[in-house]
Amino acid sequence: MKLNFEISKSKRKKLYIQLYDEIKNMIFTKQILPNEKLPSVRQLVNRFSLNSSTVLKAYELLETEGHIYKIPGSGTYVKDRKNYVEDQEQKPIIENFKYGQIRINESINFASATPGVEVFPTKKFQESINKVFHEAGGEALKYHETQGFIGLRKVLAERLKYDFHDVYCSNIHITSGAQQALDLIKKSLLKPTSTLILSRPTYSGAINTFKGSCKIVTVEMLEDGFDMEELEEILNQTNVNFVYTMINFQSPTGIRWSHEKKMKLIELSKEYDFMIIEDDCLSELYFYDNPAAPLKTLDKDNRIIYIKTFSKILIPGMRLAYMIVPKELSPQMVAAKFASDISTSGLNQRALTFLLRDGFLENHLEETRKLFRKKFELIVELIEEIQDLEIYYRPEGGFYIWIILPNFINSNDLYLELKKRGVSILPGNVFYPDGAKDNRIRISFAAVTEDEIKIGIKILNDTVMSFKKINNSSDDFMPII
Amino acid sequence: MKLNFEISKSKRKKLYIQLYDEIKNMIFTKQILPNEKLPSVRQLVNRFSLNSSTVLKAYELLETEGHIYKIPGSGTYVKDRKNYVEDQEQKPIIENFKYGQIRINESINFASATPGVEVFPTKKFQESINKVFHEAGGEALKYHETQGFIGLRKVLAERLKYDFHDVYCSNIHITSGAQQALDLIKKSLLKPTSTLILSRPTYSGAINTFKGSCKIVTVEMLEDGFDMEELEEILNQTNVNFVYTMINFQSPTGIRWSHEKKMKLIELSKEYDFMIIEDDCLSELYFYDNPAAPLKTLDKDNRIIYIKTFSKILIPGMRLAYMIVPKELSPQMVAAKFASDISTSGLNQRALTFLLRDGFLENHLEETRKLFRKKFELIVELIEEIQDLEIYYRPEGGFYIWIILPNFINSNDLYLELKKRGVSILPGNVFYPDGAKDNRIRISFAAVTEDEIKIGIKILNDTVMSFKKINNSSDDFMPII
Repeated sequence: MKLNFEISKSKRKKLYIQLYDEIKNMIFTKQILPNEKLPSVRQLVNRFSLNSSTVLKAYELLETEGHIYKIPGSGTYVKDRKNYVEDQEQKPIIENFKYGQIRINESINFASATPGVEVFPTKKFQESINKVFHEAGGEALKYHETQGFIGLRKVLAERLKYDFHDVYCSNIHITSGAQQALDLIKKSLLKPTSTLILSRPTYSGAINTFKGSCKIVTVEMLEDGFDMEELEEILNQTNVNFVYTMINFQSPTGIRWSHEKKMKLIELSKEYDFMIIEDDCLSELYFYDNPAAPLKTLDKDNRIIYIKTFSKILIPGMRLAYMIVPKELSPQMVAAKFASDISTSGLNQRALTFLLRDGFLENHLEETRKLFRKKFELIVELIEEIQDLEIYYRPEGGFYIWIILPNFINSNDLYLELKKRGVSILPGNVFYPDGAKDNRIRISFAAVTEDEIKIGIKILNDTVMSFKKINNSSDDFMPII
Repeated sequence: MKLNFEISKSKRKKLYIQLYDEIKNMIFTKQILPNEKLPSVRQLVNRFSLNSSTVLKAYELLETEGHIYKIPGSGTYVKDRKNYVEDQEQKPIIENFKYGQIRINESINFASATPGVEVFPTKKFQESINKVFHEAGGEALKYHETQGFIGLRKVLAERLKYDFHDVYCSNIHITSGAQQALDLIKKSLLKPTSTLILSRPTYSGAINTFKGSCKIVTVEMLEDGFDMEELEEILNQTNVNFVYTMINFQSPTGIRWSHEKKMKLIELSKEYDFMIIEDDCLSELYFYDNPAAPLKTLDKDNRIIYIKTFSKILIPGMRLAYMIVPKELSPQMVAAKFASDISTSGLNQRALTFLLRDGFLENHLEETRKLFRKKFELIVELIEEIQDLEIYYRPEGGFYIWIILPNFINSNDLYLELKKRGVSILPGNVFYPDGAKDNRIRISFAAVTEDEIKIGIKILNDTVMSFKKINNSSDDFMPII
């Protein structure tokens, strides 16, 4: 087979990614056929003057993603695309999302809600880790407190006491990410007889966690928060125990609640005696000089379980979040955490403690806000140029754009077609607890570069246009009766 | 108040621990009274020529453990011991263990089942972490695969393929410790209608996890494994779905199954169609030249879910374990893991990959085996000298000694009395799924030094003798009727 491409250090992409992309392209364009043998590692090393580790990494990635397979002692082969297609693409969309996750192989990723590597303070984190080893040695590798490293909880309590009421070491709980916080709430508080309110739409991870473990009632999300009339109707009819919500820059809509609705929700929580689960991923990532206050700042009566992850604002792979709970719930949370994984890695907790202590996070957030604001302004401008697409809400922070599709496209079809064209988005129906609207998509610009935004939105535009054409042309063939 | 003690660098204990011990002692002996103000940090710094950080650490520890409290702007005070005693000591034992954990404040810790800091390869682990940063940079801080970092799963598959049948990257799952593996099994496989077999006694963490989530039936643990006759009776009467077991150096008994019983259990699993959950913490830690094979080595029909933690044999705070599951169960496990915490810290997974690749673990285990053998021989010799105590089983590996008490002591009383005297053990009843026998205790020598073993077993001896005396003397006052 001919290898009609070059691998070059001068390109922006890493060498192994270049090689991966080129071979994947050859497979997709049938320049290499199913079950055909691929060049050996040695051949690629010689042909492109690469290290063997680079070639191995590219092959590893291709194998992981199901494009190639190895026969020990024989070589590496192209997977049968027919099977591949069956596996990956033709499954009904609901199947793909069944477990709250989706395989993201595409080069332009508008699906991921997590900032990319270029935003991570990698060097700073490495320094912190070494500082931990220097100061604590092996102590850092022991089991840490189930509730979380006391040093970290102290720093958090100190930082939060100005904004929040009743925050102490004793009611802060460190979790392995926000997902674990949701899981602990489910384990310790939700009963099959509990009623929990979710919005239409809401964060898909919350749907996954809570569905099946309690009764779920939904309320419409308007441009400034829940539909409060609908909520009050529900509260009058049903004994509601919990309300789950993202107050600022909600996933998937980007909506920020108005102050009035925030006050109202707190009031209602007292009147109707329910707890609020506030999942705060993004409050710090406001674009304009208009900081977004969590609902928790208004909570004088300990009605809120507050969840804050460091995945979106710092480093996702650290797997760290915290939860503030009313103090009477602390023992149950500790028990749930202990039964889940004993405790969270102390090394990461201690390294985070250093990052919080020396004021690093504030500078980092400043930079991150600027970066995301720039990406936001670019992507909104480009999407607004696309005929037929409507941005539902213009967010003031975060990284989600919630888009209403024209009536000639359904979100699953658009998702599948974009996937084929190398762009991933999330179809709107995954954000509906009762799986309703399919004319919405969520575009996240968390993990994409400005170049990728330009290319990706161009592809989105072309794809929308192609649906329009199909729609129009099929009209031509409609029998007139 | 007079501070009649000295803090000295020449002592074996760390400075802050010395200070902590002395102040705690003053509180317990009422040299400082409840609600009395303690010396300021500055005063202690001057009096003992310490760094302020040393004093702060000691006060922090005292505060964490509930001996003292701070009033901001005023000072540090002694907690009311009456309340303290109520909180910590007088609670019924069952309350203390309700959440599967217990507060270990004592200086000699025979309760912990985790090796101490001196065994950790701290330096080596730090090197590995830095190697990860060097080679992978920010990639190491991204979300990693939910099933576990592919590089780690590959190394494990490679290592395990000689001993185990059907082990591939695709059926290895990385978890945040063995406890999470148990939790994932519960989440993905156990139904309220499932029946699971636990032994009498068994690992308390398994009781905590499984109790309440399915039907539990128990079988007696004999000196070479389950009572197989009892097991077959149960199997004939009940539709059993799962059997949970530790095959080598079981907690709490230290028992190692005979080969015959291992074969028999596998056979029965086929005949009666149940799955075996093998929780393998300690197989590598055999004392004599007689390696202990996991049950999994005999499993040709994929009847076993195998769990292996690195907490006991490497570093607990790394929070890493793996699970091998029959491949048809892999998707459910991934789903359960995703819903629990998305994925495990990639940094730790990658660092472990390096440790496994370069053969470090084997050397480390060699050293660890020697160390524990030495401690084992010492502690067994000392316990055997105590009149009235009977070692139930003489283990060939691990770090548990299961002891039968004489009829004049009940394990809870002994536990409470030893706690007062600064020694912690675990009373046997926490290891019984249906809370039965209270004349056993588990002594673990995982976390203690040889010196601590000598002192601790001396205290154990004295305590047993004191119970004997009370018992005899109370006999004197028995009315003769």
